[in-house]
Amino acid sequence: MLGEMLFNVRQKSPLVHNITNYVTVNDCANILLACGASPIMSDESEEVEDITSLCGALNINIGTLNRSTIPAMFSAGARAKALGRPVLLDPVGAGASPLRTETALRLLREVRPTVVRGNLSEIKALAGAGENTHGVDAAEADVITADTLDRCVKFAEAFAQKNKTITAITGAIDIVTDGCHTFCIRGGHPMMSRITGTGCQLSAMTAAYLAANPGETLNAVAAAVAAMDICGLRAFSRMTTHDGNNAYRGYIIDEVFLLTPEELERSGDYDLR
Amino acid sequence: MLGEMLFNVRQKSPLVHNITNYVTVNDCANILLACGASPIMSDESEEVEDITSLCGALNINIGTLNRSTIPAMFSAGARAKALGRPVLLDPVGAGASPLRTETALRLLREVRPTVVRGNLSEIKALAGAGENTHGVDAAEADVITADTLDRCVKFAEAFAQKNKTITAITGAIDIVTDGCHTFCIRGGHPMMSRITGTGCQLSAMTAAYLAANPGETLNAVAAAVAAMDICGLRAFSRMTTHDGNNAYRGYIIDEVFLLTPEELERSGDYDLR
Amino acid sequence: MLGEMLFNVRQKSPLVHNITNYVTVNDCANILLACGASPIMSDESEEVEDITSLCGALNINIGTLNRSTIPAMFSAGARAKALGRPVLLDPVGAGASPLRTETALRLLREVRPTVVRGNLSEIKALAGAGENTHGVDAAEADVITADTLDRCVKFAEAFAQKNKTITAITGAIDIVTDGCHTFCIRGGHPMMSRITGTGCQLSAMTAAYLAANPGETLNAVAAAVAAMDICGLRAFSRMTTHDGNNAYRGYIIDEVFLLTPEELERSGDYDLR
Repeated sequence: MLGEMLFNVRQKSPLVHNITNYVTVNDCANILLACGASPIMSDESEEVEDITSLCGALNINIGTLNRSTIPAMFSAGARAKALGRPVLLDPVGAGASPLRTETALRLLREVRPTVVRGNLSEIKALAGAGENTHGVDAAEADVITADTLDRCVKFAEAFAQKNKTITAITGAIDIVTDGCHTFCIRGGHPMMSRITGTGCQLSAMTAAYLAANPGETLNAVAAAVAAMDICGLRAFSRMTTHDGNNAYRGYIIDEVFLLTPEELERSGDYDLR
Repeated sequence: MLGEMLFNVRQKSPLVHNITNYVTVNDCANILLACGASPIMSDESEEVEDITSLCGALNINIGTLNRSTIPAMFSAGARAKALGRPVLLDPVGAGASPLRTETALRLLREVRPTVVRGNLSEIKALAGAGENTHGVDAAEADVITADTLDRCVKFAEAFAQKNKTITAITGAIDIVTDGCHTFCIRGGHPMMSRITGTGCQLSAMTAAYLAANPGETLNAVAAAVAAMDICGLRAFSRMTTHDGNNAYRGYIIDEVFLLTPEELERSGDYDLR
Repeated sequence: MLGEMLFNVRQKSPLVHNITNYVTVNDCANILLACGASPIMSDESEEVEDITSLCGALNINIGTLNRSTIPAMFSAGARAKALGRPVLLDPVGAGASPLRTETALRLLREVRPTVVRGNLSEIKALAGAGENTHGVDAAEADVITADTLDRCVKFAEAFAQKNKTITAITGAIDIVTDGCHTFCIRGGHPMMSRITGTGCQLSAMTAAYLAANPGETLNAVAAAVAAMDICGLRAFSRMTTHDGNNAYRGYIIDEVFLLTPEELERSGDYDLR
């Protein structure tokens, strides 16, 4: 199943519209190209509806939101939904400021994204349960481990049901759920938190998987998350004693480029509840 | 001839003002440094005229244009022209939205750039002949190959004549023309389309070649295009089985850094019509 | 002493708020992660005070300042000062336009940054002594060498005293002074000027050292500068004949990641006047 999702990305090479932060935007563009999709970035209100109309999916990332890009997120989101195209919301830093939390909540209510992807601190902030905000990274208390997994799954499922959105919470173990069916996906590496933007990159890539796999939304998200996990692990295994986080950053994108559908099918490590 | 153009860039180390998108801006800055020039980025109307006045050339790239940067493009462009400095326009994504197409057309009419560089889909959109827009990449139907070359050359020459601007259309074969004399330049590698920003990088580098070679505009553009072709090829030849598009992206910039005037002179593969 | 400063960064993992340019922002984020800190970027007035409140230090970089980010610099700066958090100002391109010079001067007067870090041309522009502006790089006449060192130290000390701010002027030799005590730090490599953003990266990293070492401001800045010098040298020693400025850029960040407190303590090359 997972492999087919990637096969379709490579086959269809979907164009993905990104309204995203300027910190990790280049990596987002390159990971989209790496997985077989095509990126376009635009956050200008006067054109976002036109750009979204050309695209197979819309990726909204609030990492460096500002007064002029926020309206663009709403109008692009509305257009995507009107056209039946999937929308992904990455609520970067929700909880770090009222502007971020409220903008993300309004997007959740008004755009009704197909998928929300964030770390546990961010999703908790959206659920009104956040106390552990530590900037754009998950707080130390907000880790998903074998011990906390059951509790986290319940939380994710409740969030997905309440907001009628597929919810992907990524961490040491990743949870992808539509509220009824839940993937728990293993892989990745702690080193991923030592570079900026692995979350942003995964969100962009997930939008590509969504675009290429209509009608298979939950599976598409699970496949993108599993792909990132595999590539994070493989990238780590390539590191030499001379390599640091910059080398690792590059290896991940290269592994996404090299990953085949067969490898994703074979190596994806998940259980479905 | 080609080698001399690069020699002058290295000799004069021109400062290049870039009003460019936030997706590929870091790569643009680094490729300018790689070829021997010096970058400065500014898109704030209140200062762009001052910045342009310090610089040997202006590179305008509409990749993530927005309401506040568009006026900056016009005022910087006007200042550069008033000072007799070369202006390059990269109409990224022209055809993808009316805002992009119309802004590029207005820049073409009002700023009268020295050089326009884009892919075939973008230049067609500006010529009113575009039907094949596929985001920021050339549409599949818009490829320049041995079969379509004569037709494409005619189109480029007509565009250059009509708009009184040197026109560089890059693709599998690159066309650089002032409407009378036309370079057809070979090289590069399809892998270049698997990373974001090779076009943006070429535009930035071309501006440096223009700044360093006054009175040799057509040759300067041809040299920059040929240099990118050589570096794209060499970068590909360095790829190992572990490398993906991120490694390739880095290799191109490194090859631009390493390229000597003698190598450019010897390896540039073009015919002049 | 130097090693302890880095030890504290790794120990405390401070969150650093960056209002910085979009050219080198990704490298700034990754170098913060490399040295053991955590980055957050925000330049939206509506939230910068909230973000600053979460952070251990504020890094203000005017590399691509614009009308909407300038007010954010002032309100974030005021909040940081009110909370007793260190503020670093990087006056990128001061002297290149009145907007940059005046904004930097206003920030100096109104925010009263803890530290100002720039090249000699930029600091001269702020001192009203600049004649040599060459974009964002130091002018050729503005080099700090063994011959000009005494003169430069006097200039830096006078600037620090007058503005009541620790002043770091980086070049072939680096000067870090509070007006009374002055570090002259050696190391680095001319290759560092062939990539964009080594200055920006150092500023971001210095903010992390400041956050982690309250009450040790001068030592913290000297340690960050010495660390960058060591990593610039080590990165150069890794270069092969195939490497250019892009490879070098990555090596520096990786060396920052790998640098241990012990190595910094042992290899930092400075004298204290």
